[in-house]
Amino acid sequence: MAPRLGRYADSHARSSPGAAVNVSEALQTRVSSNNFDAEATLSGDEITALVALAQEAPSSFNIQFTRFVAVTDTATKQRLMAAAWNQPKIGAAAAVFVLTGSLKAHEAYAVRMRAAAAAGEVPADVMERMVGMATQAYSNPVRAREESLRSVGLSGMSLMLAAQERGLASCPMIGFDPTAFSEILWLDADHPPLMVIVVGRAAAGNSPRKPRLAPADVLRIVG
Amino acid sequence: MAPRLGRYADSHARSSPGAAVNVSEALQTRVSSNNFDAEATLSGDEITALVALAQEAPSSFNIQFTRFVAVTDTATKQRLMAAAWNQPKIGAAAAVFVLTGSLKAHEAYAVRMRAAAAAGEVPADVMERMVGMATQAYSNPVRAREESLRSVGLSGMSLMLAAQERGLASCPMIGFDPTAFSEILWLDADHPPLMVIVVGRAAAGNSPRKPRLAPADVLRIVG
Repeated sequence: MAPRLGRYADSHARSSPGAAVNVSEALQTRVSSNNFDAEATLSGDEITALVALAQEAPSSFNIQFTRFVAVTDTATKQRLMAAAWNQPKIGAAAAVFVLTGSLKAHEAYAVRMRAAAAAGEVPADVMERMVGMATQAYSNPVRAREESLRSVGLSGMSLMLAAQERGLASCPMIGFDPTAFSEILWLDADHPPLMVIVVGRAAAGNSPRKPRLAPADVLRIVG
Repeated sequence: MAPRLGRYADSHARSSPGAAVNVSEALQTRVSSNNFDAEATLSGDEITALVALAQEAPSSFNIQFTRFVAVTDTATKQRLMAAAWNQPKIGAAAAVFVLTGSLKAHEAYAVRMRAAAAAGEVPADVMERMVGMATQAYSNPVRAREESLRSVGLSGMSLMLAAQERGLASCPMIGFDPTAFSEILWLDADHPPLMVIVVGRAAAGNSPRKPRLAPADVLRIVG
């Protein structure tokens, strides 16, 4: 019987049992894991809860560019693993989240905004101005892709911290063949896979956190 | 006298005074703010603490692509504001964080890794393999820019949540002229400004959080 990963199933990320994990602690303790317990699973409800939190990340005009394909099926994970340099964590993690951009998200945004204006929730002139700016920006496919890349970063970090809060291990990955991933997952060209985040229960043997550059090496204050 | 923003100066983000903010709460309560108290300031130590937490975000090979220019100087903020559609939040926020990529970060990574191997901290063959892969990937300027875009998303989300934990308001911005920003901040071509995050004390009149799409609209489970 595969163990279920409950909300606080694995306590290594928490300071005390049952306590919520604060932001600083989650940032400082999260480590990109290579080794996952292949017997652990995540339910659809658990996956949906993680995505709902990742959805809280901001986006340009609130367009919400990030899409999530969560793979828990063993056969599909094996196919994705073969298209990702055979990295074992894709096969072993409970869920493989493939984060895609959405290059036509501004069109759905325009539909939502027009409905909101029709319902009196947004003034019509504000709606027209916002939709005009968003359409001008993101009908340019380069800008749509660049904003999608920022967005998978914003959403992906949120997803990893939400996982950390639940005692789940995670690892972001970009070492995969996006064309093969699209074929395996039937993704159209408007939804390019831009980042993978594997989530599950950590197994033994993971490396410690890697050192970070000092603030003096990455920060300039103009004040 | 300008009020100082202490660690927990503004309690709207917290459930109870003095309590740390957990991840879910920070994600669910953070709102992109337009209105900032122009009298509030952030010290160099407070800025450095935020950047240190943002630095905890993961990056490909642990290369650490994101760089931070934190502007607190009034005159410089005014110049940046003029290059960002005159959006008042750039002038009013306590600190304007300009997040840049670093398109040559893999070169500094190779230097660090060689030093680590020389010190016996990393096996030489592992070092050679990692440096070889990183160099192959990121000597391609398109890949370096795309990874920088993902990285400012990962780091930027971490920065905003760290600010939220401290009771500080934030807003991510991409509506600025990157060429003008580079000129104002003396940024070379290897450090393109890719995202701005303003941080400070919220003033009155901010809009409520905007609605998010339902998980069913953004998530497919293959299981």
